[in-house]
Amino acid sequence: MSEIPSKWKCAVIQLHSKPMQLEDNFNRAQGFIRKAAEAGARLAVLPEYSLTSWVPDDPGFADAHVDREYLSKFCELAKECNINIVPGTFVERHVDDGKDMLYNVAHFISNEGKILGSYTKKNLWHTERAHLEAAGNNPHTVMDTPLGKVGLLICWDLAFPEAFRALIIQGAKIIIIPSFWNLLDLTEPAFQRNPRSEAIYLESIVISRAFENVSCIAFANVGGQKESGFAGLSQIAMPLMGDIARAEGAHEQMVIGEVDMEVLQDAEESYKVREDISRPDFHYPVYAKN
Amino acid sequence: MSEIPSKWKCAVIQLHSKPMQLEDNFNRAQGFIRKAAEAGARLAVLPEYSLTSWVPDDPGFADAHVDREYLSKFCELAKECNINIVPGTFVERHVDDGKDMLYNVAHFISNEGKILGSYTKKNLWHTERAHLEAAGNNPHTVMDTPLGKVGLLICWDLAFPEAFRALIIQGAKIIIIPSFWNLLDLTEPAFQRNPRSEAIYLESIVISRAFENVSCIAFANVGGQKESGFAGLSQIAMPLMGDIARAEGAHEQMVIGEVDMEVLQDAEESYKVREDISRPDFHYPVYAKN
Repeated sequence: MSEIPSKWKCAVIQLHSKPMQLEDNFNRAQGFIRKAAEAGARLAVLPEYSLTSWVPDDPGFADAHVDREYLSKFCELAKECNINIVPGTFVERHVDDGKDMLYNVAHFISNEGKILGSYTKKNLWHTERAHLEAAGNNPHTVMDTPLGKVGLLICWDLAFPEAFRALIIQGAKIIIIPSFWNLLDLTEPAFQRNPRSEAIYLESIVISRAFENVSCIAFANVGGQKESGFAGLSQIAMPLMGDIARAEGAHEQMVIGEVDMEVLQDAEESYKVREDISRPDFHYPVYAKN
Repeated sequence: MSEIPSKWKCAVIQLHSKPMQLEDNFNRAQGFIRKAAEAGARLAVLPEYSLTSWVPDDPGFADAHVDREYLSKFCELAKECNINIVPGTFVERHVDDGKDMLYNVAHFISNEGKILGSYTKKNLWHTERAHLEAAGNNPHTVMDTPLGKVGLLICWDLAFPEAFRALIIQGAKIIIIPSFWNLLDLTEPAFQRNPRSEAIYLESIVISRAFENVSCIAFANVGGQKESGFAGLSQIAMPLMGDIARAEGAHEQMVIGEVDMEVLQDAEESYKVREDISRPDFHYPVYAKN
């Protein structure tokens, strides 16, 4: 594997995923990824449910990914364009212990077109729990990529600091988060308290995760019409810096940020958080420490 | 104990603590607390090192609190004004295992003038570690107060989501955080990356802690001159709402926010985070769970 770059461009693609329009969604995603590669980006990230949107009651939803056709297409595209891709997430059907299970899965595809690792969502959002199975007790794992050690998380995982700790204790420096986070996805009393609630959450939490975990966070949220509650706010965050790129508006768009990994060293020299949590006598439990 | 109020006013006092001017600092703090009580506040919070400032090399610093004179004065004031007070933090000298130890301690004083609980800082900031002892393995504990279950944390504890989880798993709904957070308190390379770094951290992390822990967070930071790196940003944050009050500017001031504890119920009905982390089969370890 060639040398890991200290500076590289990251593209987060706020795709407006149209329900079950797989080919159309793929084609637009492909267009953005080609542009990202032309702009010199080393990584492109798509949102959760990138090709299907979230339509669990659609008869085709559960089997949309059954032949992994589009995953192969993304692998070819990555190789052709020489760019690493996290193509959002796919619903995947697996047979575990003789039982048919639906999972929500993200993959990391290298610029050589190889799948370097996959992650099945652990912390399902509540409306997902009726349709999908969570990877409850699978440990979070970290993958070696051409950009360094990467961890994958998905959407509501953002609410669980434990998930991030599990990744950084294994050395992850970059945490990539395809998401489908919508302002309307609250109970009515909660939404009435503050219709901007989830925007405030996203404006705070992505940056907080970058600081508290001394990590680069690439958060690609789904795009769509503001009237339908889409929040946008796709962003790339770094400790010390905060957001280095952020989508303006909820509509489909791509934002590219220049990531300087040496910022992480400067941050760690001040905060020493990775050092503290790695001590054998650290006074809190850290998941997946061993 | 009388009924716990669902709505109450909270005052965070961004005291400009002058080095070793204990009497003067106390008098100004007292003035703010009297005003808070007159405005109907049920709780007043002062910053870390409220009466001494952080001057560890001053010959009087370590023993400033040796007779607990000012702590008694705060208890009298609480009773007289019928207001709960967290009077910032004090450096306290204790003999543990025959060894002289200096701790950084916060107390919760009830409106009847009683100390209902105390907390010794666990996650010391790096420059503190040369001077103070951390309460490394003491568990975080929660106290019953006239406002409900309260947890105390101090300043750099904010960076450790583990500390918050330890409190909410025990039922804390209100987390009070006296702080001495300064923009200059970074290594030079980190500060050069972004002189506003710590302001961005504080603008994000307090709100994030409120959302991710479905809790009311009362954060009282020390005040001072902007030129000396004081960040201010004392705030009261709630899930769904974000900041319900925030200090404008770094100078000494008091801000009062109206806390509606029913917001926590609405938030929890959407997020179910307290429910998730309390499950016996929750897939991450939670400190102090048992």
